Amino acid sequence: MSESNRVWRLRKRPVGDITDDVLSLENEAIPEPGEGECLFQLNYLSLDPTNRIWMSDIEQYMPPVELDAPMRGVVCGTVIKSNTPAFKEGDIVSGIGSWADYQIGSPETVGLLGDTGDVPVIDAFGTLALVGPSAYFCLLDIGEPKAGETVVVSAAAGAVGSLVGQIAKIKGCHVVGLAGSDEKCQWIKDDLGFDEAINYKTENVPEALAQACPNGIDVYFDNVGGKILDACLKLMNLFGRIPTCGLISQYNTTEPVPGPYNYDLILMHRLKIQGFIILDYMDRYPEATEALVRWMDEGKLKARLDVSDGLETALQTVKKLYTGENTGKLMVRVKDV
Amino acid sequence: MSESNRVWRLRKRPVGDITDDVLSLENEAIPEPGEGECLFQLNYLSLDPTNRIWMSDIEQYMPPVELDAPMRGVVCGTVIKSNTPAFKEGDIVSGIGSWADYQIGSPETVGLLGDTGDVPVIDAFGTLALVGPSAYFCLLDIGEPKAGETVVVSAAAGAVGSLVGQIAKIKGCHVVGLAGSDEKCQWIKDDLGFDEAINYKTENVPEALAQACPNGIDVYFDNVGGKILDACLKLMNLFGRIPTCGLISQYNTTEPVPGPYNYDLILMHRLKIQGFIILDYMDRYPEATEALVRWMDEGKLKARLDVSDGLETALQTVKKLYTGENTGKLMVRVKDV
Repeated sequence: MSESNRVWRLRKRPVGDITDDVLSLENEAIPEPGEGECLFQLNYLSLDPTNRIWMSDIEQYMPPVELDAPMRGVVCGTVIKSNTPAFKEGDIVSGIGSWADYQIGSPETVGLLGDTGDVPVIDAFGTLALVGPSAYFCLLDIGEPKAGETVVVSAAAGAVGSLVGQIAKIKGCHVVGLAGSDEKCQWIKDDLGFDEAINYKTENVPEALAQACPNGIDVYFDNVGGKILDACLKLMNLFGRIPTCGLISQYNTTEPVPGPYNYDLILMHRLKIQGFIILDYMDRYPEATEALVRWMDEGKLKARLDVSDGLETALQTVKKLYTGENTGKLMVRVKDV
Repeated sequence: MSESNRVWRLRKRPVGDITDDVLSLENEAIPEPGEGECLFQLNYLSLDPTNRIWMSDIEQYMPPVELDAPMRGVVCGTVIKSNTPAFKEGDIVSGIGSWADYQIGSPETVGLLGDTGDVPVIDAFGTLALVGPSAYFCLLDIGEPKAGETVVVSAAAGAVGSLVGQIAKIKGCHVVGLAGSDEKCQWIKDDLGFDEAINYKTENVPEALAQACPNGIDVYFDNVGGKILDACLKLMNLFGRIPTCGLISQYNTTEPVPGPYNYDLILMHRLKIQGFIILDYMDRYPEATEALVRWMDEGKLKARLDVSDGLETALQTVKKLYTGENTGKLMVRVKDV
């Protein structure tokens, strides 16, 4: 066991974009697990849009990270010491942890990753642990897409969006994705089977959407909020659904952000907008992983990881989420398993 | 039968507030019903916030009224000639018609008001025909209030809002209403049994709401949108519901109106916002009227009409909806029945 434990700590709350002084990397002692806890070594750190939310002292779905505390993250690690019957040495666990080589877990914060069959742990963690179930439940439970309906996805080349579009195709929908580069658009159309892709940085989004959705929009899977939400609202069919999985266009802003200007269409078109956080669906995880693994096996569902090596790269890597540089699920590999 | 038929026609689309040149009152011939139609004489004209929507050439839930066409309204009248087996002379009908003494109806546009028992026709039409079922279905189907939860209602002294609050009390909720005068606040508390009332014109709404809702808000019944919506969003509990029945603060605006600034709390608190138009619930009307009549009989549900006499007063009267001058359901009485 290495004697050094690197820990990223939150030093200030970001104002606007995440800057280098927001986190600092410290060398610290390896903690000792108490009764009912385990110590695990980090294998993979998932980087997610929600990291920016946790850094901020705003209303959110969990308490924000406290100043000077270790940065919170979705993690996958290997148990090296256990004082709880829930885990034994060598177990692979995943859940909510911190950006640190060594950390304490408990059955309240992490769970066994479970049997991933032929799927490498990094792929299983990347796809199944958070983004896959998010895509699955948010689209199917809240969006309720029916065969023949039109589903639009923003951040469509992102970790959740790319899965959402593929699941909507599996359900027989006409699927339109918005992404931020021609390369991403090509990928979601050619490799993932989206029907249409719109480059929101170069195209006129309202016009391109109207053309790509000749029958209007039945489900808009919202990852971004802002202007794209407004453009989609304009095209929503009666009784349309807007599952809201993220509002990433707003996370780095410093000014109050107005809601959509077409808010009145919620009333006129009897739309449903509903927020989604995967934490509410933990007890239904097996349902999602069963379906996701089956679809992957059948070649109907593809995932792409965007892996950065070394815990020391985490701060620079997380920034890519907000510039749109990443392609696929963003992860830091600390130690392969 | 009078030889004169007064008809209000839409002459221009309102910009901002409804002005006197928007409608004109004409003397015209009495129309002849065709096959499958009836001719009825107007008894009561309901004036509703949606009238302003119908005047505008904006996205809405029905086509807007065409320029120079008779103004559309929710009406109650007496059949005086019928070419359809659906109605016979003397029947009282209600439904979608126009602001005119005499008009054509068909089974597609109006239905029999039905037996109102001891309730006078004007009260039955005022409460049961539109606002009662709106309050009933929008609150119960979309809001799903549970006993012990906190329900907040805006435009609480209005036709729909005053019923919503009373129904929420029947369901065992803690009920808080927002209204625009001390007289209205007193009425909803003392006469209708609301737990708390807030005068949104004189009080600090965010502070007063926080005080009136010590356990947060579970259901916010939105009739107005705008700043009150934002203040309520801030207090919504996890998994809260926002049935959206109206957005009256926006109807008379000429500038694009931003949606709520606290839109991100939809995600953080996993809220559901859903638009409601009573037209979608026509086939379930009997369920609502049965319950509403029963509650009225039991003294649990009170309604207040605000009646103006004479079709010629309709234009001046409808303006009261947007200044908050009316107390209770706004109606024009043309000819008692």
